[in-house]
Amino acid sequence: MKKNVLIIGAGGVGHVVAHKCAQHNQKLGAIHLASRSLAKCQQIIDSIHARGSLQGPGILEAHALDALDIEATRALIRSTGAQIVINVGASFVNMSVLRACIDTGVAYLDTAIHEEPEKICETPPWYANYEWQYRDECAAKGVTAVLGIGFDPGVVNAYAALAQQRWFDRVDSLDIIDVNAGSHGRYFATNFNPEINFREFTGQAWTWQNGQWVSNQMFEVRRTDDLPVVGTQSTYLTGHDEIHSLSQTLKIPTIRFWMGFGEHYINVFTVLKSLGLLSEQPVKLDSGQEVVPLQLVKAVLPDPASLAPDYAGKTCIGTLLEGEKDGKPREVFLYNICDHAETFAEIGSQAISYTAGVPAVAAALLIADGTWDVGHMANVEELPPLPLLTLQAGMGLPTRVKEGSHDVALEEAPEIRA
Amino acid sequence: MKKNVLIIGAGGVGHVVAHKCAQHNQKLGAIHLASRSLAKCQQIIDSIHARGSLQGPGILEAHALDALDIEATRALIRSTGAQIVINVGASFVNMSVLRACIDTGVAYLDTAIHEEPEKICETPPWYANYEWQYRDECAAKGVTAVLGIGFDPGVVNAYAALAQQRWFDRVDSLDIIDVNAGSHGRYFATNFNPEINFREFTGQAWTWQNGQWVSNQMFEVRRTDDLPVVGTQSTYLTGHDEIHSLSQTLKIPTIRFWMGFGEHYINVFTVLKSLGLLSEQPVKLDSGQEVVPLQLVKAVLPDPASLAPDYAGKTCIGTLLEGEKDGKPREVFLYNICDHAETFAEIGSQAISYTAGVPAVAAALLIADGTWDVGHMANVEELPPLPLLTLQAGMGLPTRVKEGSHDVALEEAPEIRA
Repeated sequence: MKKNVLIIGAGGVGHVVAHKCAQHNQKLGAIHLASRSLAKCQQIIDSIHARGSLQGPGILEAHALDALDIEATRALIRSTGAQIVINVGASFVNMSVLRACIDTGVAYLDTAIHEEPEKICETPPWYANYEWQYRDECAAKGVTAVLGIGFDPGVVNAYAALAQQRWFDRVDSLDIIDVNAGSHGRYFATNFNPEINFREFTGQAWTWQNGQWVSNQMFEVRRTDDLPVVGTQSTYLTGHDEIHSLSQTLKIPTIRFWMGFGEHYINVFTVLKSLGLLSEQPVKLDSGQEVVPLQLVKAVLPDPASLAPDYAGKTCIGTLLEGEKDGKPREVFLYNICDHAETFAEIGSQAISYTAGVPAVAAALLIADGTWDVGHMANVEELPPLPLLTLQAGMGLPTRVKEGSHDVALEEAPEIRA
Repeated sequence: MKKNVLIIGAGGVGHVVAHKCAQHNQKLGAIHLASRSLAKCQQIIDSIHARGSLQGPGILEAHALDALDIEATRALIRSTGAQIVINVGASFVNMSVLRACIDTGVAYLDTAIHEEPEKICETPPWYANYEWQYRDECAAKGVTAVLGIGFDPGVVNAYAALAQQRWFDRVDSLDIIDVNAGSHGRYFATNFNPEINFREFTGQAWTWQNGQWVSNQMFEVRRTDDLPVVGTQSTYLTGHDEIHSLSQTLKIPTIRFWMGFGEHYINVFTVLKSLGLLSEQPVKLDSGQEVVPLQLVKAVLPDPASLAPDYAGKTCIGTLLEGEKDGKPREVFLYNICDHAETFAEIGSQAISYTAGVPAVAAALLIADGTWDVGHMANVEELPPLPLLTLQAGMGLPTRVKEGSHDVALEEAPEIRA
């Protein structure tokens, strides 16, 4: 049993996590929110009070923190009495926050893999380059660290684990499909931190095919699916965090990630990339000033949080498994539909941030009640999937299961093997 | 009679001007080349020696100069004994170089209008905001200052003046058409300094229509012409220097400028502009660093000078006049065709730089021999056009005249009114 949450990061996902923690503060205890910008934390806290989102009376406090400063992070964990840290800061701070959590013996959660600012698309599996290097230490010290518990990575990993256990004797391929069929009405914007967002697409796209790593260029391989609710959508083979754990933890020969992009997005991306404006490497101007192009692109693009009020439409994110059960071929799709306008009405966020943030809070609740407080480092597919999926269904992210023309809520899906 | 030339600016046009001055150094005297970068000056000088371009023995020297430093510019003019300054530096230095020329009593030439770094598309006529404020002082002190003597502005102004005198009783409209039908083989590049180049298109497009200033957006108005040699080409209504003098000096009700752009150029431009990446106003990054987006875009684009070796194809730049002669409607097009590969073979430059630089050297020769040493400030249409056009025809830029199906060299065109 753990309590008191320190949320690190006050961007779009931090907003969701803080609101959802507040909605469950009777179980989670004190809620602390920290980022470099105290003002951004305070804005989120103000919005929680404005909506009356606190489940009951309790501590809700803002803190200024440079999460790369391990000593400062340890000090804040100790002074707040937080036993659960939800790290939704920039991907660059994972390793320092994780270090501070191990040192203080508190539980750690994040929603995206660690990255170093000047490196993109490192050697797979990515987790082995950073987080997994602390796996033995977490186990030795009994520290719970849940990696990548957003929607994707996160819920889609739980989908994979559950479906493999329940509905398959053998899974041949796992395809994670992520489509945002919503529209923000701007000329161009990314749905989360542009710096992190673009870094996913500027290098090679690593996927796991027939038991080995395969590299493609972004937008080189396309598929088109007729998806529930959002209809026919084109998606592109993309490198993504979860491939780097699922390929190591589940014995499935082919694991791919597909992200949906419109033609306009691809055009803008192609222009920026071709000109070198998405580079993470500094460029020297005539003035002698050194500038990282990607950081300027981030600065000129809309703040993803600002898109929420005008966002219309829905996301569809899910895991498609193909394989065999009882000697017959089988294809099952587990997915969630999330509506931008509904999430905005509830907590003032668009669906991309919402789907990333809610699972982390569900996981924090599972750590608080002991279900997921496993005392070691784990990726989501290594943890019991059903408690997560059941809990988050009540928090705004229900799961549906589709097989052929059958499309039902997870709760109504037959437990074939159980 | 003036001699000794100081060239300010060692970019693509500076390269052309230096080579062409060297080819005529027996008339021009000592040739001095100055820019912020001594190395760039020296590279150009080395290339002149490598090609044996000096007409005869003489001084050819490089100097480091910040042309915004008026005192340093005056000192360099005095120490070199230059009586003619050809300013082909960035458009930001015009006013300080002009000031230094007036103070030292030497002749001044430039190829583009003055701009202030943080302002674009100021109130028309642009010359009145800067250069023309020194008009009275030039006249009082007998200083020759020839403004905008590249191809456009420059030669196209001379075309307008000559044609109006020779072939029309009344000119109703003057359309300057600038098409580069060449290809550099890169994903994207501008043909001269990207910072100056984009600034022409990011604001409103001012043109002179029916005796008043009209503002359009860039790429809002298109025309398509079947042009000599380069064939059918689409061009777009563009704001440009020469409209701001021709509208004041020639009594022609409609004066427009049309620049050719391919769809790919427009797409890249539209993406960059829509995202705010062509802005001349600084943007603050997360790091606190302030960056002018346009300066970064300049830094990531190819150096225009680097395009020359691979450039293939031709430019077509000319002036189209419509009006009346002897009671009959008339349409005459004066133009030049310039071949990228030929100019590269001659002096290692592409045709855009070549067409801009050669007229400035022709003008310097006309100042050296007194023909254009008028002792006051003048735009090109206010000076005798034929000496310029005759001289530059022998320097690589011949003029042709097209009327209906007749298309002849200027030298063969009948002098209807003369």
